[in-house]
Amino acid sequence: MRLQLATWPEVETYLKERAEIIVPIGSTEQHGPNGHIGTDALTAEAVAFGIGAATGTYVGPTINVGMAVHHTQFPGTITLRPSTLIAYIQDYVNTLSGHGFQRFFFLNGHGGNIASTNAAFYEIYAGYTATAGAAQQRSNRPEPRCVLANWWESEEVKSASREMFGGREGSHATPSEVALTYYLFPDHVKNAPLDPPLAPSGRFFGADDYRRRFADGRIGSDPSLATPEKGKRIYEAAVQGMIPVFKAFAAAT
Amino acid sequence: MRLQLATWPEVETYLKERAEIIVPIGSTEQHGPNGHIGTDALTAEAVAFGIGAATGTYVGPTINVGMAVHHTQFPGTITLRPSTLIAYIQDYVNTLSGHGFQRFFFLNGHGGNIASTNAAFYEIYAGYTATAGAAQQRSNRPEPRCVLANWWESEEVKSASREMFGGREGSHATPSEVALTYYLFPDHVKNAPLDPPLAPSGRFFGADDYRRRFADGRIGSDPSLATPEKGKRIYEAAVQGMIPVFKAFAAAT
Amino acid sequence: MRLQLATWPEVETYLKERAEIIVPIGSTEQHGPNGHIGTDALTAEAVAFGIGAATGTYVGPTINVGMAVHHTQFPGTITLRPSTLIAYIQDYVNTLSGHGFQRFFFLNGHGGNIASTNAAFYEIYAGYTATAGAAQQRSNRPEPRCVLANWWESEEVKSASREMFGGREGSHATPSEVALTYYLFPDHVKNAPLDPPLAPSGRFFGADDYRRRFADGRIGSDPSLATPEKGKRIYEAAVQGMIPVFKAFAAAT
Amino acid sequence: MRLQLATWPEVETYLKERAEIIVPIGSTEQHGPNGHIGTDALTAEAVAFGIGAATGTYVGPTINVGMAVHHTQFPGTITLRPSTLIAYIQDYVNTLSGHGFQRFFFLNGHGGNIASTNAAFYEIYAGYTATAGAAQQRSNRPEPRCVLANWWESEEVKSASREMFGGREGSHATPSEVALTYYLFPDHVKNAPLDPPLAPSGRFFGADDYRRRFADGRIGSDPSLATPEKGKRIYEAAVQGMIPVFKAFAAAT
Amino acid sequence: MRLQLATWPEVETYLKERAEIIVPIGSTEQHGPNGHIGTDALTAEAVAFGIGAATGTYVGPTINVGMAVHHTQFPGTITLRPSTLIAYIQDYVNTLSGHGFQRFFFLNGHGGNIASTNAAFYEIYAGYTATAGAAQQRSNRPEPRCVLANWWESEEVKSASREMFGGREGSHATPSEVALTYYLFPDHVKNAPLDPPLAPSGRFFGADDYRRRFADGRIGSDPSLATPEKGKRIYEAAVQGMIPVFKAFAAAT
Amino acid sequence: MRLQLATWPEVETYLKERAEIIVPIGSTEQHGPNGHIGTDALTAEAVAFGIGAATGTYVGPTINVGMAVHHTQFPGTITLRPSTLIAYIQDYVNTLSGHGFQRFFFLNGHGGNIASTNAAFYEIYAGYTATAGAAQQRSNRPEPRCVLANWWESEEVKSASREMFGGREGSHATPSEVALTYYLFPDHVKNAPLDPPLAPSGRFFGADDYRRRFADGRIGSDPSLATPEKGKRIYEAAVQGMIPVFKAFAAAT
Repeated sequence: MRLQLATWPEVETYLKERAEIIVPIGSTEQHGPNGHIGTDALTAEAVAFGIGAATGTYVGPTINVGMAVHHTQFPGTITLRPSTLIAYIQDYVNTLSGHGFQRFFFLNGHGGNIASTNAAFYEIYAGYTATAGAAQQRSNRPEPRCVLANWWESEEVKSASREMFGGREGSHATPSEVALTYYLFPDHVKNAPLDPPLAPSGRFFGADDYRRRFADGRIGSDPSLATPEKGKRIYEAAVQGMIPVFKAFAAAT
Repeated sequence: MRLQLATWPEVETYLKERAEIIVPIGSTEQHGPNGHIGTDALTAEAVAFGIGAATGTYVGPTINVGMAVHHTQFPGTITLRPSTLIAYIQDYVNTLSGHGFQRFFFLNGHGGNIASTNAAFYEIYAGYTATAGAAQQRSNRPEPRCVLANWWESEEVKSASREMFGGREGSHATPSEVALTYYLFPDHVKNAPLDPPLAPSGRFFGADDYRRRFADGRIGSDPSLATPEKGKRIYEAAVQGMIPVFKAFAAAT
Repeated sequence: MRLQLATWPEVETYLKERAEIIVPIGSTEQHGPNGHIGTDALTAEAVAFGIGAATGTYVGPTINVGMAVHHTQFPGTITLRPSTLIAYIQDYVNTLSGHGFQRFFFLNGHGGNIASTNAAFYEIYAGYTATAGAAQQRSNRPEPRCVLANWWESEEVKSASREMFGGREGSHATPSEVALTYYLFPDHVKNAPLDPPLAPSGRFFGADDYRRRFADGRIGSDPSLATPEKGKRIYEAAVQGMIPVFKAFAAAT
Repeated sequence: MRLQLATWPEVETYLKERAEIIVPIGSTEQHGPNGHIGTDALTAEAVAFGIGAATGTYVGPTINVGMAVHHTQFPGTITLRPSTLIAYIQDYVNTLSGHGFQRFFFLNGHGGNIASTNAAFYEIYAGYTATAGAAQQRSNRPEPRCVLANWWESEEVKSASREMFGGREGSHATPSEVALTYYLFPDHVKNAPLDPPLAPSGRFFGADDYRRRFADGRIGSDPSLATPEKGKRIYEAAVQGMIPVFKAFAAAT
Repeated sequence: MRLQLATWPEVETYLKERAEIIVPIGSTEQHGPNGHIGTDALTAEAVAFGIGAATGTYVGPTINVGMAVHHTQFPGTITLRPSTLIAYIQDYVNTLSGHGFQRFFFLNGHGGNIASTNAAFYEIYAGYTATAGAAQQRSNRPEPRCVLANWWESEEVKSASREMFGGREGSHATPSEVALTYYLFPDHVKNAPLDPPLAPSGRFFGADDYRRRFADGRIGSDPSLATPEKGKRIYEAAVQGMIPVFKAFAAAT
Repeated sequence: MRLQLATWPEVETYLKERAEIIVPIGSTEQHGPNGHIGTDALTAEAVAFGIGAATGTYVGPTINVGMAVHHTQFPGTITLRPSTLIAYIQDYVNTLSGHGFQRFFFLNGHGGNIASTNAAFYEIYAGYTATAGAAQQRSNRPEPRCVLANWWESEEVKSASREMFGGREGSHATPSEVALTYYLFPDHVKNAPLDPPLAPSGRFFGADDYRRRFADGRIGSDPSLATPEKGKRIYEAAVQGMIPVFKAFAAAT
């Protein structure tokens, strides 16, 4: 259920019974020689739509540019500074909270978003708390609840990956996420050579450091293993794995 | 050509010959009883993809939440404050400008974005000019060029609208834009009654004022006239009407 | 009626019957070889005082530095970044709104201000709307109304210009605005040579681009035609042309 | 020498030999029952013009709205938040510094501006220092110099006040500043009764506290003593008193 | 080695051979009925001093107010909004980076800081990368490296806690941290009753939600077990556990 | 009475009778060849603890990094930009004000903080005043009161300094402040040579200018006179001198 395909009277009706919304959040950043620049946004959106369809929940517009400072030495990457992303999430949540949305489930496709998004949640909470940094009178609206969940962190996805990709999953431009986009966009499978097939691993700091360590952008992964078929399995595992996480959040007292 | 479906080496190759990018910018806001909340983002994205396909130009990720403060008394609307939208556009342009993109064609779907987006362009230019408000040394990158074009402002669209909708186009939740989304999402045609069929017209100020004047959200329009077929014609007119505008921008010395 | 020449008890009395204020907004920027750097502020202020005198309306302090990033390659230009101008207008309006001023008529002297000023209006409206980006409780003050009007856009000014300057008005450092300042400051008529007399026309982007295209700062104009006498006529046309625009704004329901 | 009445080629010529500019900074705020709301801006501007004329120095546009939060419970007062004033001064100085202005003499008419203006100077300096909070490369322009001087703090003004007003000068809505505006605007002398003639004295904190302590807005002053003639003497004392201060600043190594 | 007890020539000498600094970061927030409000700052500072002494590394001034929005319904708590903490860390790191400090080891005492601090690191990195959101020319200084380490996350601390406190450690106002402050400040051991001895567990969202769930502020802990002696063991485990983490960071290529 | 060594129930009890808090604010910046980088924070903290102990008042966490842009050409200095310090103080005060703290006594150790801290106070007051720049409804909490007092400005300190250091006190890296830290940290007395013993005097502007004028960082001082014994006398004079200032602030109606 895409919020963007609803009308405002439909939303008004929905809010009489429901207060949840799913917010896909991804990134537009390099994913190695054969991964799509939009991987993290495209996968988050698809999984969010899957959860929304399964649970009858509205899915808001995808936050398709995220925090990707460390990828900016690769052309085509776009990043928000963390402070911009925080302001963006604040406005997004606060507008909808004014209408009665109370529970925001951020379905995340990009590790780099985690810190800034969680920071944003507390920037939001501060606005609902007369004693948290603001002089103005606190809202008469109830404090909203926000949570971030990464689609790849369910046991379902992990075991599918383990089975299909063995130890070659890695942590950026992984076969799981690349396969998922190949499933979603089978006309855009990329046959670029990967040399070496398994990318180097390790931690990193800023953008220069990242590019120096990971020459083609991948970290520890072998996305040559990605196929649309495997992507379908990842997609289904991701949706199934996240549904109970979402339901628990929606039902929590 | 979606940037999100490219790889970074493909972008690197593109930048050897091209420096343009099309940026769809829309909004997530009420469009009356039978218009989609995402109308302005969905239409801008579709028209941008059309221009991109016709001209071999990359289309960046859609800015799908815009400046819609005046619509916020209708549930489901999301707005950025102008200052947030300005920061967002700054980061978007500045990252890509660092890679060699020099000309940014914002294909706009929402009148409310115009002021903030143009303000953002000058906030960006200030960063490239040592004498414009910043102490730091000016960039050694050339100053980028940004322009905003509204898809509905070509003669092609105006005459198609005139012919199909007569004087019932109005200025918000128009039959043109509603038809365009019906064409794009034929499974989501809405049959909500419109009372009166032709909405009242007039200017407005803030969000309270807007809701008071325009009870169901429409301004001066009769979107009951919208059909997927008419939407197809609007879509084609919009793409054809904008191609020369884009080409002139890309070619200007 | 200058607000700056009133006392606070006089303002208190005024607010019992009136809620309008006129805000002159201009710029401090190059106006070619024979135009004053303060043209846009000086003209806006003079026209605003004229409207204020004719309608018994307070005129607030002139916003004399505006958004002029594109002029910053010419010495003496001062610019605010758009974000600074937005913050400035916000504070200006919000303070006065707290006293009972409800309708803000921005009498504008500079095209470069339009986008940022309109963006500022929505940044202001967002603060009065619990559902527009802010968590805090909405104001118990009514939403103010803000509008921007350019003094040169009335039919009165256009026909006076047409008659006196023919097709040599142009769009920056125009004979109309230069003449107006010559009328206001007859001791500061400048006799600098203009070469060519009619400046080149065209669009522009950032500050480097502007200077490259328009070598002496003018766009499409021939301000050698400006005289104090013609300036008097422009001034009177501007005041007369704007009075009904202001009255309509003040009287609107 | 008003910068606003110069042309850009004139400024270019000036900058070959001079690097100073005088910036009048005042406020728009209540000045008791018989003082003008614009007193601090009008007096600063007049004194700045006097210094500029005597020394052949450009005087920039007057900063006519300042930091007056504590006066905001009196209608007609306008305030910038300190953070807005800081941003404003930053942009003002940084643009002109890009053209070659190196020494900024802020001629101040309002005690409430002192803290924010001095804070702004250091916000500016930080931008010229690679080691002061910014990652970007430091400017290749020399660090500008900024200073703030209050027109009433010379011995000349103090002795004139002492002689004419005895112990009835006070600290807000003083006979000196009110007289100065009466001299500048003799048609706007106000005959409002003052009760008691000598206002109470004392310190204050925020806006509520200020209004509670100082019922008609004055602090410790008796501006019933103000006349245009006395204002002329204050004006001349202020200009004469500030000229050596300005010259010392301009000449310092 | 406290930076605050060094002189600038000593720092200059240090920087010829070393580029690391340890930055203690904590919080000032409620820690239940018998825990100190400054627990997180006091413990982080003490552990940082321990690591600094053992490795001859400067320890910068403690960031003693952190991100504690969720604790603000308990008196005495102080919080920065995430955006303020990000700005603070930016300035802290950027000033020192200008002097040659290249590696910043944030020794953290408060879980609530993790997201905002990591967001700050990327806000910082963006400033060193011409392609990451800023138009200005990138720094000619090398990109610094920042990392955050929580003192309680070493195996040394975990096993000491397990042994001394069994399953009664919990996650806020834990016996480990309370004991550590009792060791540091033996004159300030608090004998407040804890009812129930073992606090409830669970997740939380904003400040209202936190207070509703955790009536006395503790989460899942039994700090009645805390004694100065046990605190000594925790302290030593924390320092020993973090030394290799710090050394690996300092030595990494 | 350190707030950090209290528990939240203790603070709750305190607030039933008291509303004051002392906030030490200092800086981390060069203090010449034999002065500690943390001098201003260490001295402010010690004096604040002294006042707190004598009057039974809570002392909040020390603001140990302040506004020291002009010292940043000396390694080890850390500065906040004024805007960051303002945001920091805002959050600090607003959180505690939400709990019932109403009077904030900033005990200052660094002249460079004065402007920014006073600016911060008005930024705070603006938040409590519906007519001061904010649209949101004013707080239902009473407006807090903030004041800044410099520990060295009492007659007690001045006369002790005069007696012990004659005319060799100067204004930065003074024997008084250096002695005070020697008293507090007798193991960290520095025996660095001072050449010349008496540093040059004069005003300064930005960081480059400061370093050029004051080669070793001192201004007009001879801190070779500092000893722990003299520091003890300065410390006691500072505490005794400030106690009545604090009491007057706490008791004022």
